[in-house]
Amino acid sequence: MSVMDLNSDVGESFGAWTMGDDAAILDSVTSANIACGFHAGDPSHMAATARAAAERGVAVGAHVAYRDLAGFGRRFVDATATELADDVLYQIGALDAMARAAGTRVSYVKPHGALYNTIVHHEVHARAVVDGVRAFSPDLALLLLPGSLALEFAEAAGLRGVSEAFADRGYNPDGTLVSRREPGAVLHDEATVAARMVRLATEGVLEAVDGSLIRPRAQSICLHGDTEGAVRLAAAVRAGLEEAGVEITSFA
Amino acid sequence: MSVMDLNSDVGESFGAWTMGDDAAILDSVTSANIACGFHAGDPSHMAATARAAAERGVAVGAHVAYRDLAGFGRRFVDATATELADDVLYQIGALDAMARAAGTRVSYVKPHGALYNTIVHHEVHARAVVDGVRAFSPDLALLLLPGSLALEFAEAAGLRGVSEAFADRGYNPDGTLVSRREPGAVLHDEATVAARMVRLATEGVLEAVDGSLIRPRAQSICLHGDTEGAVRLAAAVRAGLEEAGVEITSFA
Amino acid sequence: MSVMDLNSDVGESFGAWTMGDDAAILDSVTSANIACGFHAGDPSHMAATARAAAERGVAVGAHVAYRDLAGFGRRFVDATATELADDVLYQIGALDAMARAAGTRVSYVKPHGALYNTIVHHEVHARAVVDGVRAFSPDLALLLLPGSLALEFAEAAGLRGVSEAFADRGYNPDGTLVSRREPGAVLHDEATVAARMVRLATEGVLEAVDGSLIRPRAQSICLHGDTEGAVRLAAAVRAGLEEAGVEITSFA
Amino acid sequence: MSVMDLNSDVGESFGAWTMGDDAAILDSVTSANIACGFHAGDPSHMAATARAAAERGVAVGAHVAYRDLAGFGRRFVDATATELADDVLYQIGALDAMARAAGTRVSYVKPHGALYNTIVHHEVHARAVVDGVRAFSPDLALLLLPGSLALEFAEAAGLRGVSEAFADRGYNPDGTLVSRREPGAVLHDEATVAARMVRLATEGVLEAVDGSLIRPRAQSICLHGDTEGAVRLAAAVRAGLEEAGVEITSFA
Repeated sequence: MSVMDLNSDVGESFGAWTMGDDAAILDSVTSANIACGFHAGDPSHMAATARAAAERGVAVGAHVAYRDLAGFGRRFVDATATELADDVLYQIGALDAMARAAGTRVSYVKPHGALYNTIVHHEVHARAVVDGVRAFSPDLALLLLPGSLALEFAEAAGLRGVSEAFADRGYNPDGTLVSRREPGAVLHDEATVAARMVRLATEGVLEAVDGSLIRPRAQSICLHGDTEGAVRLAAAVRAGLEEAGVEITSFA
Repeated sequence: MSVMDLNSDVGESFGAWTMGDDAAILDSVTSANIACGFHAGDPSHMAATARAAAERGVAVGAHVAYRDLAGFGRRFVDATATELADDVLYQIGALDAMARAAGTRVSYVKPHGALYNTIVHHEVHARAVVDGVRAFSPDLALLLLPGSLALEFAEAAGLRGVSEAFADRGYNPDGTLVSRREPGAVLHDEATVAARMVRLATEGVLEAVDGSLIRPRAQSICLHGDTEGAVRLAAAVRAGLEEAGVEITSFA
Repeated sequence: MSVMDLNSDVGESFGAWTMGDDAAILDSVTSANIACGFHAGDPSHMAATARAAAERGVAVGAHVAYRDLAGFGRRFVDATATELADDVLYQIGALDAMARAAGTRVSYVKPHGALYNTIVHHEVHARAVVDGVRAFSPDLALLLLPGSLALEFAEAAGLRGVSEAFADRGYNPDGTLVSRREPGAVLHDEATVAARMVRLATEGVLEAVDGSLIRPRAQSICLHGDTEGAVRLAAAVRAGLEEAGVEITSFA
Repeated sequence: MSVMDLNSDVGESFGAWTMGDDAAILDSVTSANIACGFHAGDPSHMAATARAAAERGVAVGAHVAYRDLAGFGRRFVDATATELADDVLYQIGALDAMARAAGTRVSYVKPHGALYNTIVHHEVHARAVVDGVRAFSPDLALLLLPGSLALEFAEAAGLRGVSEAFADRGYNPDGTLVSRREPGAVLHDEATVAARMVRLATEGVLEAVDGSLIRPRAQSICLHGDTEGAVRLAAAVRAGLEEAGVEITSFA
């Protein structure tokens, strides 16, 4: 029987500002990437989101980021290796306190935004993230893009690496994502997306933009929850997988 | 045989700015109140300070504060109970990650600055601090001013309350500190201060400004490390206590 | 002929987070209270909002606040007089740069949230706000609650004080706002609110919750733009005033 | 008669943290690069520094930076062009309010740290800085490294570009600074440094590390004030220039 994890970014509100429909998306996923205060997520939103995840049995992951509230962590910050490793450790620790107060714990880390993209290729930052995660616990998993340099470093360091596919994104034949500047980058049709994810979960294949079949390494599927349409699409993916008999459970 | 703890605020640098001579003061104390990022202390300074404490066998305490970098946590912030409890929990968790990476752990909490002073009398904030500490662990101690409302709430909640005396401060006959606007508020003479602390540790008494004797409840003595003179005074207090045969050890 | 100003808080987005429908509300008002970065409003949102106001001929006001992004400026911060005056001056200067780049300038200041409420009665903060405003220019007006201590200080210092009524709030017979914990605090019916504001603008009277008539000093009416209903209500108030022949123009 | 400006970074304290001996260095320089709150410099330190500069007739420059308090602006932040231009404009406006309250005004802009270095070669950020400066006023000068791309863009945009030499740094034969990882990067001897700067001011030449003579374009000399030795060196440079009959005056 096939097994698949569904993850989503949540807890990205801050103070008086809200973002996303966390309650709805948490009903669809098995892993919650919770913001830790550096790109979003004040302590009270973190605590509330950790409780909401715990109530649903959803695994809690630390969605660590560069220190960049004004840029929502979408901007590369040229931190030193020490700064970045310590920033990562700080964020995991803070979220773990919230998770434990909610009766659960942080079981994995997923870097956010610019950090996620940077450590695909940036050696110093990739190692720093792995160092920060390991300093917290060698039992944490790291959720990353397939092919990310950080995935390689994580596994070399004895951490569990987990890679993901993006439900609503088109793929190039080489397994990379279609650029948002090109046609086919983002998929909107619920049925199409659900069918693609079922095939990925059951057969391990995904159709690329040119019609060729690729086999992305993916133990988790990333879903969005920032718009009403995204929440519906997430529910459709989950329903499709359930109907296809896929066991939906966290990798953590 | 008498027992006494010595505590000091450390790790109050931030980024490029340094404050205090942490290495020197950590040689004198048994408990280190480490800033957690809200009034001072970026993650890398926190990590380095936790390591420096661990190397010396000094207990690590979370020096939690209002979210107020620009005011160094010296300004009251009218946070809600939920915000404050979650802010406290966040800070403890973040520091605990640093402490564990350094081979130790957070064993107590000492509120900083305006928060320390506010919870002497502010019921909502006193309860919120206790709630935040308990949410992390019922095994943490809370280091506070004798008579603080938070001390009462902490003990009612099953937490260990520890109270402290200030080595370099004059006391009123009622046990309160002499206001900094009045003569006798701050003591500078090392021999005098050391002798006072020896008497406090061995006999439990302290001479107030009017010459009367008071018996402050104090399981710890607070020392400063922000000036060269403060570091020398701290060393003098420690030497005096050692000569008097007082066992200097953390309450934690 | 009667004259009335309509003001609203705008520019309260921050980074990736949006708040309010600024474009819609700017079509209804004559004075825009633009956040200056301390409770909301990053530089790019400030610049865009200043441009949107300038395009519509809407006067630009500095919506200055305590330094409190996490609390959206809704929390009292016990700043010193010097800190607060300088914080106010900093915010006005920053917004004025944006306003001038957009072809206009800051012509008034309206304190936000906790600062607005605090300076109704807090002597030190009321004087500090007036000092900060005057340090920028004695030609700025200050938009405040009728009866605010800061209004008195502003006028004593030679600044122009302007006071406002709240369109959607109920009033007590003594001219204060009905507490949000009591019935009648918030009015939702567009026709009722519009009729009340027309009467205020043309006759200078407002019906209090007990049916008695009061005469609040109000040269401006505060409208909200944070919900769809609020935007509709604002448009209804403007339409009502126009139909009644009230000249709608900024006090600035 | 030769003319030279002396500039230094000041106002880099923040809240409870102090940096540099601003009073001493302001006695030696003619142009003060004042931090604007993004890498250092809270509003009260900005205001006090602007007053100290105004009292001495020292020109006020905006020392604008990436938004990076934790990294002291020493880290590249991959901001968009719009974000950066608006951040620059915000900072200039805020400091100008302080300067005007002190009886002077911002007359030039010197980017700080990573921003200064980045715009030597980063086209998007170089243009954004120039756009932000011009949006404030076309009369502002921009103080930069000779050869900086931003210098070229500034002059093409009709702004006055001013370039500087570093008093205590060694130069390569090609006019670039000797890397801090190599010998000869930093000069400490006061007499040597003063003599070099006199020759630069009077003859326009500087001896490079290999003994060859270079002619850096420099209308200003950058001095440091962060250590006691730096302050003494600054005074020595000023005294040397005065003895050599160089007119020391701001370019602004």
